[in-house]
Amino acid sequence: MRAVVLDEHGLNVADRPIPTPGPGEVLVRVLKAGLCETDLQLVRGYMGFRGVLGHEFVGIAETGPLSGQRVVGEINCACDQCDYCWTGLRTHCPHRTVLGILNHDGAFADFVAVPARNLHRVPDEVTDEQAVFTEPLAAAFQIPAQVELKPTQRVIVLGDGRLGNLCAQVIAQSGCRLTVVGKHATKLERIARLGIETAQVGEFDGTRQADVVVDCTGSASGVETALRLLKPRGTLVLKTTVAGTQTLSLAPIVIDEITVVGSRCGPFEPALTALRDGTIQVEPLIEATYPLANAVAAFERATSQPTLKLLLEP
Amino acid sequence: MRAVVLDEHGLNVADRPIPTPGPGEVLVRVLKAGLCETDLQLVRGYMGFRGVLGHEFVGIAETGPLSGQRVVGEINCACDQCDYCWTGLRTHCPHRTVLGILNHDGAFADFVAVPARNLHRVPDEVTDEQAVFTEPLAAAFQIPAQVELKPTQRVIVLGDGRLGNLCAQVIAQSGCRLTVVGKHATKLERIARLGIETAQVGEFDGTRQADVVVDCTGSASGVETALRLLKPRGTLVLKTTVAGTQTLSLAPIVIDEITVVGSRCGPFEPALTALRDGTIQVEPLIEATYPLANAVAAFERATSQPTLKLLLEP
Repeated sequence: MRAVVLDEHGLNVADRPIPTPGPGEVLVRVLKAGLCETDLQLVRGYMGFRGVLGHEFVGIAETGPLSGQRVVGEINCACDQCDYCWTGLRTHCPHRTVLGILNHDGAFADFVAVPARNLHRVPDEVTDEQAVFTEPLAAAFQIPAQVELKPTQRVIVLGDGRLGNLCAQVIAQSGCRLTVVGKHATKLERIARLGIETAQVGEFDGTRQADVVVDCTGSASGVETALRLLKPRGTLVLKTTVAGTQTLSLAPIVIDEITVVGSRCGPFEPALTALRDGTIQVEPLIEATYPLANAVAAFERATSQPTLKLLLEP
Repeated sequence: MRAVVLDEHGLNVADRPIPTPGPGEVLVRVLKAGLCETDLQLVRGYMGFRGVLGHEFVGIAETGPLSGQRVVGEINCACDQCDYCWTGLRTHCPHRTVLGILNHDGAFADFVAVPARNLHRVPDEVTDEQAVFTEPLAAAFQIPAQVELKPTQRVIVLGDGRLGNLCAQVIAQSGCRLTVVGKHATKLERIARLGIETAQVGEFDGTRQADVVVDCTGSASGVETALRLLKPRGTLVLKTTVAGTQTLSLAPIVIDEITVVGSRCGPFEPALTALRDGTIQVEPLIEATYPLANAVAAFERATSQPTLKLLLEP
């Protein structure tokens, strides 16, 4: 099969054997897959990953209990044997592999092997293009799973990119007063069209007004900006990882008794429900679809200029 | 009156007029006051404070509703007019002054003016020496006020100094499994005598075992050590401020979904109750008492060598 591989030659499309599903795994024929900021970081060396990339996908289960059905898959492949797995923390299993990120070949390929219990059936109302967004949308739904959002609160999403857009849509459902603060006029406009208030970062003066700030900037400066915007006793949700080290002053966290919440993968069910019911709009986030064979060009485009979501199609 | 003043000449003991209490304030005759790490930082320039130092004290109220009684005082002098004050967040009032720290003369003096509503009567069973610890002990009681501590949890206090000692004693009351990890054999021994488990930082291997880590190191490296010790989904309580900027990697906070909680001033009532009932031991933390006139020598001692609590006596 064809696969987008990261190896000693860098990023390339190679011919690989169809994966043999391990115990409890199911073979999935990939219909569409999505490029994520994490994929770009992996190419730059993040996690030291070697293998087939790709962790956002929709496909057809070829084997297993959902055989013949359209499925999406959670990316953390847990051992199901340890204390973390037994207490509902499968995404933190210390023995886990992660699709296309850690010791497990991913979905930028004709086929991918996924643990059967990671798969979710895609409702008929959800298109393939929408279903590809299940994984990043689930990550956005992790925010209300961790932090109580109330209609009385002032919430700011920092960052107008793909993740900022999805997080803003999920947070808006809480009825809070929400502003997305970003740098890119066209991206902010796309968010404003959803009825969400937006502001340019340079023009926004919300110093010490926010109860909750969600950092989706993917930039080291996001945290310092967030600490300026937060009220005392406010909550900062860190939604993006920045590779390497950052330099910042931690004293404001203590003086203002800020709570910082790290937030990673999230629940698939509310994401699929939102896509089925049309309460979250994802199609406007799609910029282009590339055939799998042209994956390298898609990576180059995503790296060289601000892009929305690029899809790959086997 | 005599007062320990920080001004353009640096730290000195000077003659100052007895303060005139403002509206709602009460004059307190100081019996004893305690030197705190924050005082040392103020001398180094933290907060740019100029005036009479000192925020840990016990005294006799000379005026007001508690006139003639022994009192301790909360240090945040709030406006009682703003949204923060009205919603119970007086310690975060943006208009506040802070005794001996921010725009308000402190307690290293014969007299100090304190808002009447900041004062708490000291129970008869509590000695002056014990009562001086009310303010830092209240800061330790802020931890269980912010973070749920359960008997099933593994908790680590990083730092064996004065604050680490008080925090450890408060946390031990939750019945959790607690270890204090520090650098100083004699300080750790003092904590071990209280029946609390201790370990040298170099010899301690608790990687990814702690549900909660409380950083009382006052050092920039405390956070990185804490992140190594915490389990995924664990909680890091930041209890000490470090001046300037720190360099660290924030990615582990996101990947392990850590919650970081900044923690500052705390409730006086549980601190006074614990001192009255003898459930917290503070006398072993007293190293020496200096007459107010020798305050500069006390500061020099605290700066030049590891010390326990130094008291000043007018």
